Amino acid sequence: MLNQKRLRDYQIEIGQLKTGRLNAISDVAGIKVGHKTIQDGTIQTGVTAVLPHSGNVFKEKVMSAIYSINGFGKTTGFIQIDEMGTIETPIILTNTLSIGIGIQALVDYSLEQNPEIGRTTGTVNPVVCECNDMLINDIRNVSITKEDVLQSIHDASEEFQEGNIGAGTGMVSFGLKGGIGSSSRVLSIKDFDFTVGVLTLTNFGKMEQLLLNGKKIGPSIKQFINDTRNEVEKGSIIIIVALDIPVSERQLKRILKRATVGLAKTGSYIGNGSGDIVLGFTTANKVQHEQDEPLSNRTIIQDHYLDQVFQAVADATEEAILNSLVTSTTTIARNGQKIHSLRDFMNRLM
Amino acid sequence: MLNQKRLRDYQIEIGQLKTGRLNAISDVAGIKVGHKTIQDGTIQTGVTAVLPHSGNVFKEKVMSAIYSINGFGKTTGFIQIDEMGTIETPIILTNTLSIGIGIQALVDYSLEQNPEIGRTTGTVNPVVCECNDMLINDIRNVSITKEDVLQSIHDASEEFQEGNIGAGTGMVSFGLKGGIGSSSRVLSIKDFDFTVGVLTLTNFGKMEQLLLNGKKIGPSIKQFINDTRNEVEKGSIIIIVALDIPVSERQLKRILKRATVGLAKTGSYIGNGSGDIVLGFTTANKVQHEQDEPLSNRTIIQDHYLDQVFQAVADATEEAILNSLVTSTTTIARNGQKIHSLRDFMNRLM
Amino acid sequence: MLNQKRLRDYQIEIGQLKTGRLNAISDVAGIKVGHKTIQDGTIQTGVTAVLPHSGNVFKEKVMSAIYSINGFGKTTGFIQIDEMGTIETPIILTNTLSIGIGIQALVDYSLEQNPEIGRTTGTVNPVVCECNDMLINDIRNVSITKEDVLQSIHDASEEFQEGNIGAGTGMVSFGLKGGIGSSSRVLSIKDFDFTVGVLTLTNFGKMEQLLLNGKKIGPSIKQFINDTRNEVEKGSIIIIVALDIPVSERQLKRILKRATVGLAKTGSYIGNGSGDIVLGFTTANKVQHEQDEPLSNRTIIQDHYLDQVFQAVADATEEAILNSLVTSTTTIARNGQKIHSLRDFMNRLM
Amino acid sequence: MLNQKRLRDYQIEIGQLKTGRLNAISDVAGIKVGHKTIQDGTIQTGVTAVLPHSGNVFKEKVMSAIYSINGFGKTTGFIQIDEMGTIETPIILTNTLSIGIGIQALVDYSLEQNPEIGRTTGTVNPVVCECNDMLINDIRNVSITKEDVLQSIHDASEEFQEGNIGAGTGMVSFGLKGGIGSSSRVLSIKDFDFTVGVLTLTNFGKMEQLLLNGKKIGPSIKQFINDTRNEVEKGSIIIIVALDIPVSERQLKRILKRATVGLAKTGSYIGNGSGDIVLGFTTANKVQHEQDEPLSNRTIIQDHYLDQVFQAVADATEEAILNSLVTSTTTIARNGQKIHSLRDFMNRLM
Repeated sequence: MLNQKRLRDYQIEIGQLKTGRLNAISDVAGIKVGHKTIQDGTIQTGVTAVLPHSGNVFKEKVMSAIYSINGFGKTTGFIQIDEMGTIETPIILTNTLSIGIGIQALVDYSLEQNPEIGRTTGTVNPVVCECNDMLINDIRNVSITKEDVLQSIHDASEEFQEGNIGAGTGMVSFGLKGGIGSSSRVLSIKDFDFTVGVLTLTNFGKMEQLLLNGKKIGPSIKQFINDTRNEVEKGSIIIIVALDIPVSERQLKRILKRATVGLAKTGSYIGNGSGDIVLGFTTANKVQHEQDEPLSNRTIIQDHYLDQVFQAVADATEEAILNSLVTSTTTIARNGQKIHSLRDFMNRLM
Repeated sequence: MLNQKRLRDYQIEIGQLKTGRLNAISDVAGIKVGHKTIQDGTIQTGVTAVLPHSGNVFKEKVMSAIYSINGFGKTTGFIQIDEMGTIETPIILTNTLSIGIGIQALVDYSLEQNPEIGRTTGTVNPVVCECNDMLINDIRNVSITKEDVLQSIHDASEEFQEGNIGAGTGMVSFGLKGGIGSSSRVLSIKDFDFTVGVLTLTNFGKMEQLLLNGKKIGPSIKQFINDTRNEVEKGSIIIIVALDIPVSERQLKRILKRATVGLAKTGSYIGNGSGDIVLGFTTANKVQHEQDEPLSNRTIIQDHYLDQVFQAVADATEEAILNSLVTSTTTIARNGQKIHSLRDFMNRLM
Repeated sequence: MLNQKRLRDYQIEIGQLKTGRLNAISDVAGIKVGHKTIQDGTIQTGVTAVLPHSGNVFKEKVMSAIYSINGFGKTTGFIQIDEMGTIETPIILTNTLSIGIGIQALVDYSLEQNPEIGRTTGTVNPVVCECNDMLINDIRNVSITKEDVLQSIHDASEEFQEGNIGAGTGMVSFGLKGGIGSSSRVLSIKDFDFTVGVLTLTNFGKMEQLLLNGKKIGPSIKQFINDTRNEVEKGSIIIIVALDIPVSERQLKRILKRATVGLAKTGSYIGNGSGDIVLGFTTANKVQHEQDEPLSNRTIIQDHYLDQVFQAVADATEEAILNSLVTSTTTIARNGQKIHSLRDFMNRLM
Repeated sequence: MLNQKRLRDYQIEIGQLKTGRLNAISDVAGIKVGHKTIQDGTIQTGVTAVLPHSGNVFKEKVMSAIYSINGFGKTTGFIQIDEMGTIETPIILTNTLSIGIGIQALVDYSLEQNPEIGRTTGTVNPVVCECNDMLINDIRNVSITKEDVLQSIHDASEEFQEGNIGAGTGMVSFGLKGGIGSSSRVLSIKDFDFTVGVLTLTNFGKMEQLLLNGKKIGPSIKQFINDTRNEVEKGSIIIIVALDIPVSERQLKRILKRATVGLAKTGSYIGNGSGDIVLGFTTANKVQHEQDEPLSNRTIIQDHYLDQVFQAVADATEEAILNSLVTSTTTIARNGQKIHSLRDFMNRLM
């Protein structure tokens, strides 16, 4: 997308399944992604919005689930998604000390679009995910505004940038520059064609553990840059999974769990202090906010056809993570440390 | 406390266990509660803060757990409490569209108290609970400020008001005026004395289902006020449970679950749209943020001594809910409807 | 059913919803219940089978969920029900040291009915629930046989006995004779009629805590029998919930949780040593074992219509528990202690 | 151990951490493993017992947790382990249709050792794990006896065989001969030395997905044996994790989850029909069945020291799985198909 050199441009393919047209989460029809990057001296942060569809998400909710790989995180909206099985706002990703601003921006957004909230209907459940960008960004200086969040929603489009952009601006992953990455897979299940898309915000991992399609490249990179420190695994990863497959909430949770496989294959041991959260939704079987009829019809896939979907999520997660690394650019941290981009080493590694 | 007429002043006692001195959550040593009430025309809302202890909660965390009875709610901080088993900020209760403001206020509060956050240590997990006060309060007019939240923390004390005060200002429960209520129990387990305290923010229930110590009083009240409507169960309840008993996270979660018993005995069927959340902590076995030594000692209670604790939580929850009803005062809703206080009917009901 | 005097024969009605024709779990069309009682000196135990439908349950599974109120129990099949959302055998209830025999009987039963198991298809997930009847039954003398289990399945019928029969033979609840009890509710949701049925195996509770439709009758009974002992809450309760409502697995789990409300209203504090397990299924949306087509259609109820269902489950659970008490007959425990039936006191209590 | 050629004998090491003396679960002091292999024509099955310590496990329980990676499985004892956090019997592994026999053998074993069960104390929670060995074993012919189970317990020792032995006799993994495999890691955390051991029963995976220390060897093996079939992922894996580290139940569950990382790195996508279950315990902080004192002391590790433990579990799981493959021997399935051992191809693969 958008002229960035991505993993497949280095002739590296993860798994056997085919990708979608853009090899991005937006290959699932209707999904858009928007960024707002904020860079001003020591402020190096931002917001990324994922829109499940282009309509009113409060009125037409998407079936959703959440899976916490390691819950050292502050993602909001979890409790209601678990109970009711729906998402009813755009999904906002930002830095960890700005989640409250993300929430209030989604409140404003939802109140404006839905005059009945707080009047004839109840409230809204804002969904905000986060990672901690304190190495590059002066996170104590809470500078993101509600307007920034609303602009990320407004600017969302099918094609979008990856790497250090939006919420990815200040992220660090495997000691390298992390950020936003995406990938997708298309499946044929008998006569049906389905798409699975993943977007990751990467901010996790220790350099020595990094794997590139099974190859232990972390130690080599440490040698290249004469890095002999013994890092502590910190940070986090947010994994957004989108499908157009008709699944139940039970099935969706099963599917999300397989993101762990892709995460493990990049070298993560799921560190103690890493908030590793998977949030997923399907654009099939949308749920109307107002629905008088007690019963409605749903199409549901059979569980024994899920194996391909599991593989798609695992592979797309692995590739999205690697895309976030190869599309990011080398950045200087607040303490002056150079946070290299993986792409600076790709020629030497292959 | 503070000269309000409470349930026991009507000679009604819930269960056989004894109460603490104040019959309030603050009977657990160190706990304080603060309110900030905001009343300005159609704005009838507020904030209540529960302080687990008077020190720096980030540096000295309390062991904690959360139990979602029905997750139609937006309480934040859930994921990390589940994973790490600690609370590291004061607990804020407010209206449902102000949780983001609660979060940002807790961020400011924590950053100020802990200059190392975002520098040499990671981030902080703000805990904000909510109910929807839209019947009485113009919730679309999001008017709570960070200063209001900080003031509720600042003003916290051992003795505090109940009823329509702080976060309870605009709440409605069983079609009556709800709000803040509290209760406690003291236990003797062999040579040890322990205290269990509960604070509830009540905003749930249908009038016809209300039980007063087992007695079906809802239908009588409906007759008193000529109410023939068939209400829908909406609203929510937040139940904060505090202990000074040395328990593990597993045991604490078991204990919190028993709040459901007290809730059921007030007449709730745990409605579909009700966000019924229990958040609990123990002041025993505090957890230091910085701790170099890999191993530390903990005292732990044996599981077969928990029965009394279960009973204490159930009874104190039931009584705290009823205290919130009898201490509230009759209020006019935004639509002009009179929201009666239970205390107006207590003489006729007994 | 079958000429036993039940709770409603004492003019006591739980809640406002109407019961089904039999006021039993078998009001849900297709469900049958069978008992095998084993009485031989100190052996006083048995088996109860609940058949979700009269066909081959392995080939035509029922959508199912499980909810553990307090997991001090040995119910088998939990893991797969949670993951796959189906039950594929009859449900067996028996004493706690005989669950392995229950499993092997269900294996035999399933192998005989399905020659393809272990050949062209995989295995089967036997579901066996239990309580500990050691006060009345010599449980160390494991005397139940696979034939006993198979006979309970074979003898299943729509009308069935309650009280000390089948798995209920040796059970004790609230210090009184417990056992099998059942109840049902019928609901009208717009143009649709639905039925909710509950069957309980009661073996829990302390006498002093017993409530009869809100009235504290435990202390009175203790006086009647000059019982001054301070009992420990032990035992367990199994609650089987059956519906004909088209629900998703997520919704079914929500519904099962409301059995806790009925349990609490009988006086239980959910004791530490009590295995309180709810197992539920719907006869709507059956799941075929063999299904080539990847997609199938399901009808699903809207969540905001669940409130009535929640109430039905809570009320039917409360009434089923009380039915188990009033239909049981006074029995002598192994230690010579008289375990009274609640029905011996009903006249004096009303 | 016992003269079998294991993974490290091929100069392949998983991860950087050191192994224990035996590189087996029994490097955790006190743990023993016993096998009973049953081979009689088409019957090719068995039992494996893991003893947490050599004393009376009912009287001195081990702190325990369970984590279900994918719950298409019938492991028993789950509910009570989750609630009470202990294991109180030896752990039995066997084929999926024999779990009831495993349970009844553990009942007999526990009754004999503990005359107070069912008399002055309650019951016992038998823990039996399983995989489906139907490709090699005639599983419909349920031939394992209680005596076989008891013998596996009786014969347990520190050193034990791996591969097609005991419960591993009939297992198939990645289309190759699977079975029992083990590995361990030793850790230094400041002044403390700890051991983590893993034992796996492998019966999962598709050949084309097999990874050997990151290398995609599955497709090569398929070529070697001219296998062009498109298999379906079936089967299961049981992963037993043992520690001597003082952890809480919350921490133990976190640790078990990291077994998923090791599993993913062998190539598994965690198939729909695969029962992938992790059961773990620590030999530290044992729990006495009878304990009068309400409070006891426990040592607990700090969470931020867990990263090394996570890595140890992941790496030992990966190596245990590979050990099960290289120690197994080629076997003929019931349908005449040759189930190769990985060791037949090791020379060509390196």
